[in-house]
Amino acid sequence: MLSNKSRMLLQSIKIFAGRASDQKLMKIIDKVHPADLGLVLGHLKKSEVIKVFSLIQDNLEYAGEVLKEAELEITVEILEGLDPKVSSKILQEMYSDDAAQILDKFSDELRDAILKEMEETEQRDVEERLDYDDETAGRIMVPDFFALPPDTTVKDTIKSLQKAEDIEVFYYIYVTSEDGQLAGVTSLRQLLLVNPETKLRDIMESEVIVVNANTDQEDVARMVARYNLLAIPVVDDLGRMQGIVTVDDIIDVIKDEATEDMLKMAGAAGAEEYIVSGSIFANVRIRWPWLLASWFGGMFAFYITGHFEDALSKIVLLAGFIPIVMGMGGNIGTQSSILVVRGLATRLIDTNEIWSVVSRELRVALTLGLMYGTLLAIAVLVLLKTGIIVGSSEFIVSEVRLASVVGLGVFSSMMVAAIIGTICPILLDRMRIDPAIATGPLVTTSIDVFGILVYFSIATWLLL
Amino acid sequence: MLSNKSRMLLQSIKIFAGRASDQKLMKIIDKVHPADLGLVLGHLKKSEVIKVFSLIQDNLEYAGEVLKEAELEITVEILEGLDPKVSSKILQEMYSDDAAQILDKFSDELRDAILKEMEETEQRDVEERLDYDDETAGRIMVPDFFALPPDTTVKDTIKSLQKAEDIEVFYYIYVTSEDGQLAGVTSLRQLLLVNPETKLRDIMESEVIVVNANTDQEDVARMVARYNLLAIPVVDDLGRMQGIVTVDDIIDVIKDEATEDMLKMAGAAGAEEYIVSGSIFANVRIRWPWLLASWFGGMFAFYITGHFEDALSKIVLLAGFIPIVMGMGGNIGTQSSILVVRGLATRLIDTNEIWSVVSRELRVALTLGLMYGTLLAIAVLVLLKTGIIVGSSEFIVSEVRLASVVGLGVFSSMMVAAIIGTICPILLDRMRIDPAIATGPLVTTSIDVFGILVYFSIATWLLL
Repeated sequence: MLSNKSRMLLQSIKIFAGRASDQKLMKIIDKVHPADLGLVLGHLKKSEVIKVFSLIQDNLEYAGEVLKEAELEITVEILEGLDPKVSSKILQEMYSDDAAQILDKFSDELRDAILKEMEETEQRDVEERLDYDDETAGRIMVPDFFALPPDTTVKDTIKSLQKAEDIEVFYYIYVTSEDGQLAGVTSLRQLLLVNPETKLRDIMESEVIVVNANTDQEDVARMVARYNLLAIPVVDDLGRMQGIVTVDDIIDVIKDEATEDMLKMAGAAGAEEYIVSGSIFANVRIRWPWLLASWFGGMFAFYITGHFEDALSKIVLLAGFIPIVMGMGGNIGTQSSILVVRGLATRLIDTNEIWSVVSRELRVALTLGLMYGTLLAIAVLVLLKTGIIVGSSEFIVSEVRLASVVGLGVFSSMMVAAIIGTICPILLDRMRIDPAIATGPLVTTSIDVFGILVYFSIATWLLL
Repeated sequence: MLSNKSRMLLQSIKIFAGRASDQKLMKIIDKVHPADLGLVLGHLKKSEVIKVFSLIQDNLEYAGEVLKEAELEITVEILEGLDPKVSSKILQEMYSDDAAQILDKFSDELRDAILKEMEETEQRDVEERLDYDDETAGRIMVPDFFALPPDTTVKDTIKSLQKAEDIEVFYYIYVTSEDGQLAGVTSLRQLLLVNPETKLRDIMESEVIVVNANTDQEDVARMVARYNLLAIPVVDDLGRMQGIVTVDDIIDVIKDEATEDMLKMAGAAGAEEYIVSGSIFANVRIRWPWLLASWFGGMFAFYITGHFEDALSKIVLLAGFIPIVMGMGGNIGTQSSILVVRGLATRLIDTNEIWSVVSRELRVALTLGLMYGTLLAIAVLVLLKTGIIVGSSEFIVSEVRLASVVGLGVFSSMMVAAIIGTICPILLDRMRIDPAIATGPLVTTSIDVFGILVYFSIATWLLL
């Protein structure tokens, strides 16, 4: 839900963009924080977006800030519609990591055309970002940081600070040796506490927490979060400082990774960009493969029930319990797998502790399975005894036996589901595959298939 | 997975704690960042935790930092085991928001006993935090911030900064009037850029982004993320500054809320603390209610199939398609609901746009439903024609008709599932209930029940 403030902004923009009252529209935009305007862009019609953007595109810096905060897909769409000369000017105003993220979504031709229009320094910065893999520290870092040699005095440091421009974060002051090696770090506040003639060497903290440029952004986020940093320096393999990743980028990483994990759980991995917009076709393309897994699982379950047709035709009642067997198994399996996946993602569970986690989940499943299996057996017995349900088949089994089989069936399918739900993510994690896919359709489908197999096996074994 | 560094630390601690080599253990601990030690605590046996903690508990500040970074449940367990006098000393060393979060988990008696042992100021700070509701800005803010009157000169500001202690964040300098009203904000860097005689009034930014003390922490996190802040001031209803929420706490909020949402999706809401440890009983207590929903849904599905026993006994084959009807419906419904839930949580979807979201999801479901319904009909037709599956019933229906009915059944259950999956979270959000529960067992269960109802209705209608 948009806040009331954003909703009012959205309404006013819609009204004035519709009436083509450029002046009034401009007045509104003038008062708005670029982040608020960026947020609202995604809720406007295409024609309205174009109108708004035509008004701000001359104020390059403001336009850049708006686009940085807008949804990536909308930003890409807007910039694709502009002249490469204008796009490149706007992108130049952004930090190189944000510009690289956007350019990465363009076609090769358009990207090259835009890069060619950029000024040399900016072009190099962006190209350097693009040289690093997606989702690494090198890609999300900014190359503009404030670093001075160890022999600089505090007085000179403050002078340099006063002259510095275009540096993203000023809270930390990095100390680097001549060859670019990171030697230490100090803070702006520290500068104020000491004699102006003190050298940085004497006040710097020399044990600096750093990441390599190829470190995965998720690991970078984890370090920034663990050590409560405002920025983390990025070094190359030789320990030379390359840039910094700031905490606001880390917040975006944490949010994006959470969304990514949730969509994986839903079997909609890669659909991040289609949450709001995106064509039907793009949506279908992302979602069909996961449903295919489910389709094959369903066909397989059909094949299995085919093998038990004899039991089914003798005791038609058995078919009615397929939903509860699948439902209870599916739910307890999802509980187990999400607890394990989230535990692995937040580093609360270590794969070395596999047995303690599996054994605990099994004991939980045992308790819940006994509870609900017994409850089902009792309920079925009561329904049969009171004649509320009547087996229409000629094949006679005692009511107690039928109730026990159904209860045991649900119990067993819950146990099987908990085992699959717990072990799959752990195995995937060991194989260095993202365990989040284990909570998606693949595991749900296997749980369905195995649950039905176990249920009918028990029924055939004990009833026929 | 723990990093290699953490794993090595864990191994060394385990070895030396086992051998009771206190000196060697102390040597290791001395070199370790408290956050690293805190992380590892959760992976030690209880006896090892006690051993480690006995070594560090005299260094109150270090002990506090370790516990702040450890998992909340472990922190609570350790402090509960200590003398209230020692616990209160350690808690005093923490920021009042962290201390309040821990104390909130204690029994009333223990909390009061510990609070009584605290020094007056710290006690008051913590009690003030506890006065605010859980998960509000007031609860997670720190009351120690740096604020000066508007007429202070930059020179005097720097002097005050040099004297200040125990203030969490120094990057922003807040300007407050005599009655505590927040008048503006400036930054440490700004101080260095101007003449030392300049007054704060003249360099401060007077439009400050603030939150009320009762604002939900999720909204606070959203604002900090949107405006890329390092800290956000918290004011009371009269605009008087009460404290600040810092970006490191915001990162924790974002991570916790993501975990909370995922567990809600799994029907394990509230199980955050049981991911790693927690007794079997505690685990069962959190998880059984969601399974109960699933159990009742299953019983209801059983009741529905009972109504179609006539059709089932004539065409036993129909039972074999229950899994694919449930599986396909469940999966597409989960996709729809997670896309909507995540869109609402990240504010990419606004509830006002309900119709465009619903209509898009329906068109996607229509496409996917037609695809997989047709695929199923063709597959069943081929299997029947080739005699791989044979209907054992005496009741004769044409193969084409049976295949069409099954295909139409899957198609319809997918449509119903997508509608339920899309509309439920939107309705819940409008009713101001967290939509994340809509992706959990409640919705999955309704999708199962309605899917089966639709499937059997179509079968009875077209086949009998």
